[in-house]
Amino acid sequence: MHRTEADPIDLLRARTSVKWRNYPEDVLPLPVAEMDYPLAEPIAQALHRAIDRSDTGYASLAPAVAEAFRGFASTRLGWEPDPERVTCTADVSMGIVEVLRQAISPGDRVIVTSPIYPPFFDLVTEAGGVVEEIPLAGGIRDGWSFDLPAIEAAFAAGTRALVLCNPHNPTGWVPARDELARLADLAAGYDATIVSDEVHGPLAQPATPYTPFLTVSDAAREHGVAVTAATKAFNIAGLKAALIVTDSERGDRLREAMPLEVSWRMSQFGAIASIAAFTEGGHWLDGVLGSLDDNRRLLADLLEEELPDVGYRVPDATYLAWLDLRALGWGDDPSEAALERARVALVSGPTFGREVGRGHVRLNFACSPEVLGEAITRIADAR
Amino acid sequence: MHRTEADPIDLLRARTSVKWRNYPEDVLPLPVAEMDYPLAEPIAQALHRAIDRSDTGYASLAPAVAEAFRGFASTRLGWEPDPERVTCTADVSMGIVEVLRQAISPGDRVIVTSPIYPPFFDLVTEAGGVVEEIPLAGGIRDGWSFDLPAIEAAFAAGTRALVLCNPHNPTGWVPARDELARLADLAAGYDATIVSDEVHGPLAQPATPYTPFLTVSDAAREHGVAVTAATKAFNIAGLKAALIVTDSERGDRLREAMPLEVSWRMSQFGAIASIAAFTEGGHWLDGVLGSLDDNRRLLADLLEEELPDVGYRVPDATYLAWLDLRALGWGDDPSEAALERARVALVSGPTFGREVGRGHVRLNFACSPEVLGEAITRIADAR
Ligand SMILES: Cc1ncc(COP(=O)(O)O)c(C=O)c1O
Ligand SMILES: Cc1ncc(COP(=O)(O)O)c(C=O)c1O
Repeated sequence: MHRTEADPIDLLRARTSVKWRNYPEDVLPLPVAEMDYPLAEPIAQALHRAIDRSDTGYASLAPAVAEAFRGFASTRLGWEPDPERVTCTADVSMGIVEVLRQAISPGDRVIVTSPIYPPFFDLVTEAGGVVEEIPLAGGIRDGWSFDLPAIEAAFAAGTRALVLCNPHNPTGWVPARDELARLADLAAGYDATIVSDEVHGPLAQPATPYTPFLTVSDAAREHGVAVTAATKAFNIAGLKAALIVTDSERGDRLREAMPLEVSWRMSQFGAIASIAAFTEGGHWLDGVLGSLDDNRRLLADLLEEELPDVGYRVPDATYLAWLDLRALGWGDDPSEAALERARVALVSGPTFGREVGRGHVRLNFACSPEVLGEAITRIADAR
Repeated sequence: MHRTEADPIDLLRARTSVKWRNYPEDVLPLPVAEMDYPLAEPIAQALHRAIDRSDTGYASLAPAVAEAFRGFASTRLGWEPDPERVTCTADVSMGIVEVLRQAISPGDRVIVTSPIYPPFFDLVTEAGGVVEEIPLAGGIRDGWSFDLPAIEAAFAAGTRALVLCNPHNPTGWVPARDELARLADLAAGYDATIVSDEVHGPLAQPATPYTPFLTVSDAAREHGVAVTAATKAFNIAGLKAALIVTDSERGDRLREAMPLEVSWRMSQFGAIASIAAFTEGGHWLDGVLGSLDDNRRLLADLLEEELPDVGYRVPDATYLAWLDLRALGWGDDPSEAALERARVALVSGPTFGREVGRGHVRLNFACSPEVLGEAITRIADAR
């Protein structure tokens, strides 16, 4: 596998996106989910060409995005989504909110499985739901799984939906097919809806591919809605394009009940970049997966050498590491000490779930090996 | 005043945006609000540079967008908005929905003054409101005004908000300052909210500048929320960036009650393009205003020569013409005959309000004089 190399630090500091603008220059920023790799060449070219033809009006490319995604999913994800059953919108977060708005009534409970991507709490609330936090079973030592009995009890008590993170942020866990099948059966038993956020799917390592929820079973197709995008895997989250995918009449009803305006919210440049990513980005993505494979192992080595009492499980997908820093004695939210004393920006563990995130942080290792090494050294030196 | 020239037709046909993709090649497309002018050079350069530094992560530029807008508003619009009282989001439509969600309760009535930009009907519904259509007073012959007695009666009967289109799409009408002041007083009298969509504001002709609602009076500041963007004036609607602006504690409360996620929805390229537009786009915009000034007069001449019984009032702002085609006998929705017989795509009048739009169409004259001339000739030949 070839490698895609991270941009040099001075180029990175010229970026104006959140990762590179939210902290002073002496801080190494490893927080928000952006990658330090250069934009894939086919995407850059497609965008340059769009500028040259002044192609900045309203996006009409939803069918082309859906078709490009079908090709990508079929060659890389083992999934044949039907382009006719895709609605595009601005981003995954909006997609989740809009699906939930159709799937639940105001005040209905919605499960999130913590530790979980923090905005999930807000998105459920934004959609009028009430968050029901059901922590994952297991943990860093033994690996994770869903707490299916607790989920079943919640469905039995009237909870109407679950927002699934597949693969899982922040743990990099890839739920197994049979576990997803059991989840789908539970949803089917109580006519609940599973909204499956699969934005990290293309970043699953080749040895541990993720399972698209709609490929799991008839129950999953009936009760699931997938929301995905090229934006995480190709680092174009700022360009705004996402896909809402269904594969059953029940799913279609939810998707088609959304206001028409939702589909006008995809950006034209998001669409153009996503098409280039899905159709021509594979080589670049392979290089990124190679570099992330190196980095996830490097992180294990670095921790073993410099911070052996930090808890870390090598993730099977994406570029996020969920670290248990309780041994450092840095309190409930060690990201504060990491920033102040070590000048390393990480994401606060408790934002992923107050209890389960205590003493934890999320680290983003989509950077150069040098930056990763320096970050760990700084933390070790600061303890 | 210098002129910005429209792109040649073969370059336009290479665009993939809605205007140039929704119709067969033999149709002249003058519908959706995109302009045929080339992208302003400072915007193109800023976007090319952003690609070159792989600057495609999450937008962190909201404060810079707000500051750039303050400069633009202060030199061109006679308005000094406070950058601290700006929330950015993806587009004007979403801004309107999110403000309404805070300003009303589900089922509340919301006024729109027809004929009006058709999505306003949907946006009110999306926000949980019920549309109360109050047609403008006056018309093509005498000019328009608000039906203030009807608006007052609606507020008195419990209507909670009004979505103002300032300047007005589809008529190109620029409401006078004193009329806006009376509207603000009515809202104040009944504690209602005016959401003022000012996206066409920078396209008001210099002789007839529009009045930013928040500059009108204390009542307007107290009861108004402005939603605006660089996207219409600079033809970058596909890039997705808009500003929600307030200037009172009441306004701030509405703006700050919006979910935090709303502000993550601006696109990074929308932000970069908007900053370039607001800070360096003035010369280009002057050229566009010159060309639109030519075209709005040319359209009057063309109609007088070829279709003298078509109703048209030269607009004071933007690039939209509201045409009364009833004399052609083409039925309630003359856009159908225009497309089928004349091969000219226009927007259906009744979508702007079923009754007031009967027999009307909206024509977009942000094109070359040749295209405009051919469109009118085709319609005249088809009658
Ligand atoms: C699981 C997950 N979902 C959604 C998002 C955000 O996606 P978007 O920017 O498309 O809303 C992220 C970003 O990191 C994420 O990790
Ligand atoms: C009055 C008005 N508001 C809003 C919009 C759409 O703006 P946006 O694309 O930012 O939602 C338009 C587009 O033509 C418009 O004419």
